[in-house]
Amino acid sequence: MSRAVGVLGGMGPEATLDFFAKVLRRAGAGSDQEHLRLLIDNNPGVPDRNAALSGRGESPGPVLAQMARGLQASGADFLVMVCNTAHAFEDDILNATSLPFVSLIEETRDAVLRERPALRRVGLLATNACLDAGLYQSAFAPHDVRTLTLEGASLERFMELLYRIKAGNTGPDVRAEMRSLALELVDAGAEVLVAGCTEVPLVLGAQDVPAPLVNSTDVLVERTLQYARGLAPLPERSVETPA
Amino acid sequence: MSRAVGVLGGMGPEATLDFFAKVLRRAGAGSDQEHLRLLIDNNPGVPDRNAALSGRGESPGPVLAQMARGLQASGADFLVMVCNTAHAFEDDILNATSLPFVSLIEETRDAVLRERPALRRVGLLATNACLDAGLYQSAFAPHDVRTLTLEGASLERFMELLYRIKAGNTGPDVRAEMRSLALELVDAGAEVLVAGCTEVPLVLGAQDVPAPLVNSTDVLVERTLQYARGLAPLPERSVETPA
Repeated sequence: MSRAVGVLGGMGPEATLDFFAKVLRRAGAGSDQEHLRLLIDNNPGVPDRNAALSGRGESPGPVLAQMARGLQASGADFLVMVCNTAHAFEDDILNATSLPFVSLIEETRDAVLRERPALRRVGLLATNACLDAGLYQSAFAPHDVRTLTLEGASLERFMELLYRIKAGNTGPDVRAEMRSLALELVDAGAEVLVAGCTEVPLVLGAQDVPAPLVNSTDVLVERTLQYARGLAPLPERSVETPA
Repeated sequence: MSRAVGVLGGMGPEATLDFFAKVLRRAGAGSDQEHLRLLIDNNPGVPDRNAALSGRGESPGPVLAQMARGLQASGADFLVMVCNTAHAFEDDILNATSLPFVSLIEETRDAVLRERPALRRVGLLATNACLDAGLYQSAFAPHDVRTLTLEGASLERFMELLYRIKAGNTGPDVRAEMRSLALELVDAGAEVLVAGCTEVPLVLGAQDVPAPLVNSTDVLVERTLQYARGLAPLPERSVETPA
């Protein structure tokens, strides 16, 4: 039996469903018993990450800590979280349990560097709170990779799109707008794009953009399968301090 | 905040994914925060229900009990289980926690009787173990409804189809074969068909058969939303003894 995966989810629920579906597809299982055990806490009641990080709402930290403890009590062997922005509260999770925590941010960075080892400039499709918290910037800085981000009106449009996706709108208009924002980053010099918000891949695929697109959800799916099956050593329990 | 739903799942994982997806679709939520909290234990390691009930394998009861306790510890307010056959082990779950348990069998029977109050004969697309345990038969008996079931070679074909679906095969051949088995029950006099195994609706829809098809997964989705939102009183904690 493989290791049981504890999933902090619900941020949003569609992204968690997307993760669950992809784990099943990629598991390549021929019977129930070859699949992974996934303990999923799809908790849409986690306080809004963007509101909290901009000082307009309560911290999601205590709720995430409680979810992590529950997942450990239910039998999880390690934890993952299907939301980039919420990784700003990773310390609350690490302090709540004794389980290894697989960072979506660090795994995505590593996948980008594997894709393009001599990378100079990466484009981030990430929320303003994720950017403000410097999650990807501090992950890439030690590798001398410059991060390009949406700013001003473009970032506002991006955030508006995310809330439309969370409300269930993944139609052609939303797809076209997301694509045009991605192209802005490519025009600015991004050699690789990171879909660094789990809502982005719901409306943007590799075929939509002229640069390699690294999808943080896909990276987490692949690594989750490897960790669960014991094909990669689980990360050490240490907290990287954001710059 | 609505009531948190504990989901005993993984039997199989595709059926659990189907349930999760349908709850999100039907919730009609406009933001993360309007969705339900679902605690899902997708545990494909639950011992094979059919093997256990035919005396060829260990009972899934203790594992289901442990899952139920974990879901309660994680904050579930009531429990559902996305597998018809596993309801033969409902007592193990009821004895393991103090939570209300929503029976997929009873909810499906009630939905069938709402669909056709003067029903005489219902056709069951259910596993041989589900049939042997008499789950649906004993649920319908007090209502003077006769249950029609697949038998012999037809039941063997049905079981073979289920394991193909669990292995990821939901193609046209599997669909056509499932449809022809459903038609056998209609030809035998079934006025309503019950998709009484959570794999069945993955390959059979209402448009495929000339009689009303009550999908146990859909029933559970609708009722879960109602219970979670406090629109229906949760079932009393009592165990119906199979006939």
